Amino acid sequence: MTKRVGVLLAGSGYLDGSEIQEATLALYFLDKAGATVVNMAPNKAQADLVDHQTATPAEGSRNVLTESARIARGDVRDVAHVDADELDALVIPGGFGAAKNLCTFASDGPDCTVDPGVERLIRAMHAANKPIGALCIAPALVAKLLGAEHQVTVTIGNDDGTAEALRAMGAQHENRDVEDIVIDETNRVVSTPCYMLGQGPAAVGAGIEKLIAQLMTWTD
Amino acid sequence: MTKRVGVLLAGSGYLDGSEIQEATLALYFLDKAGATVVNMAPNKAQADLVDHQTATPAEGSRNVLTESARIARGDVRDVAHVDADELDALVIPGGFGAAKNLCTFASDGPDCTVDPGVERLIRAMHAANKPIGALCIAPALVAKLLGAEHQVTVTIGNDDGTAEALRAMGAQHENRDVEDIVIDETNRVVSTPCYMLGQGPAAVGAGIEKLIAQLMTWTD
Repeated sequence: MTKRVGVLLAGSGYLDGSEIQEATLALYFLDKAGATVVNMAPNKAQADLVDHQTATPAEGSRNVLTESARIARGDVRDVAHVDADELDALVIPGGFGAAKNLCTFASDGPDCTVDPGVERLIRAMHAANKPIGALCIAPALVAKLLGAEHQVTVTIGNDDGTAEALRAMGAQHENRDVEDIVIDETNRVVSTPCYMLGQGPAAVGAGIEKLIAQLMTWTD
Repeated sequence: MTKRVGVLLAGSGYLDGSEIQEATLALYFLDKAGATVVNMAPNKAQADLVDHQTATPAEGSRNVLTESARIARGDVRDVAHVDADELDALVIPGGFGAAKNLCTFASDGPDCTVDPGVERLIRAMHAANKPIGALCIAPALVAKLLGAEHQVTVTIGNDDGTAEALRAMGAQHENRDVEDIVIDETNRVVSTPCYMLGQGPAAVGAGIEKLIAQLMTWTD
């Protein structure tokens, strides 16, 4: 049986959406693993728009779902209409979009709020014992939802301030190198630092390859 | 000595820019091969803007260089200011952007014109016997510049109409599967069909991996 794995996107571009390389490499390793991917994103305006050449705010408004379709080649569903019953696992790429559009961690830290459709799906996946893979800053979102009650263990690399914010939400944090993962067997959550540690696509891809391999073992 | 490989982007998103997965997987395999990447794109307005969720025209204007920076994480140079002397090789991902923003093949076919900065760089690379890798529809651009005079041999997969258009520009075309490449030793041009043949990122990645491997052998 082919496994169905959700990929939760947050726009297209690391400063205001999903980190494109992380999202693409997740799709690549999921496809290599034989998974059927269900791309999804919230159908709402982005929190902001950033010029990626200058890394400064830009005028205008873009829709998270519409921009996510650039990574997914058009095949993206509104996360509000995706049911956990349809999925065997869920992957959440990083980029600021995960902390601006999926939740408000980038601006509000531990007091952040979570997009209602995203919160519903992640809670339902966890309640059904279905695995979740969180890349880069996406573990902040998982920590917000599964920290206080389930003490989820994750990594965002080795940034002390961010790790402390995750602990403030009830999560446990372990430092890792970019090519490494943290496995929380109890919660079936696996995480890897990706561009929180800043190396290029080969190093980031090595971590994502391990994360997808671990995620798929839980779907057997 | 680290090899410096240019990646010529054309925006971000397959309907009006570079195909994101092809560009990212090229960056991934170049990084794995130890290359130093020089991302570049024309600094001008995109030919058009397309909603990737609905695949229909959208209102507004976006800049090719600014949008390309989303794939490259900000590190993109204006192709008009990149000299062939700086590079050991050049890779051109596909997506409609390669046929709309780098040249006008999408609308004008064999009678297309080429962006002046792009034309200058590709002609200089070829004149210096430096290798060029062309993905997906990008071989149409190479055919326009190196077809009539140098009879470059490329593949865009197996689409008869597109292959015929390439021949009309003086190029030779060979059919290939998505995971395969065509090697033109004389011109040092290597090409692979990618999303001209429509499979997912694993199949597309297999072709790109072979293309980058071949490209790097020519830089030794």
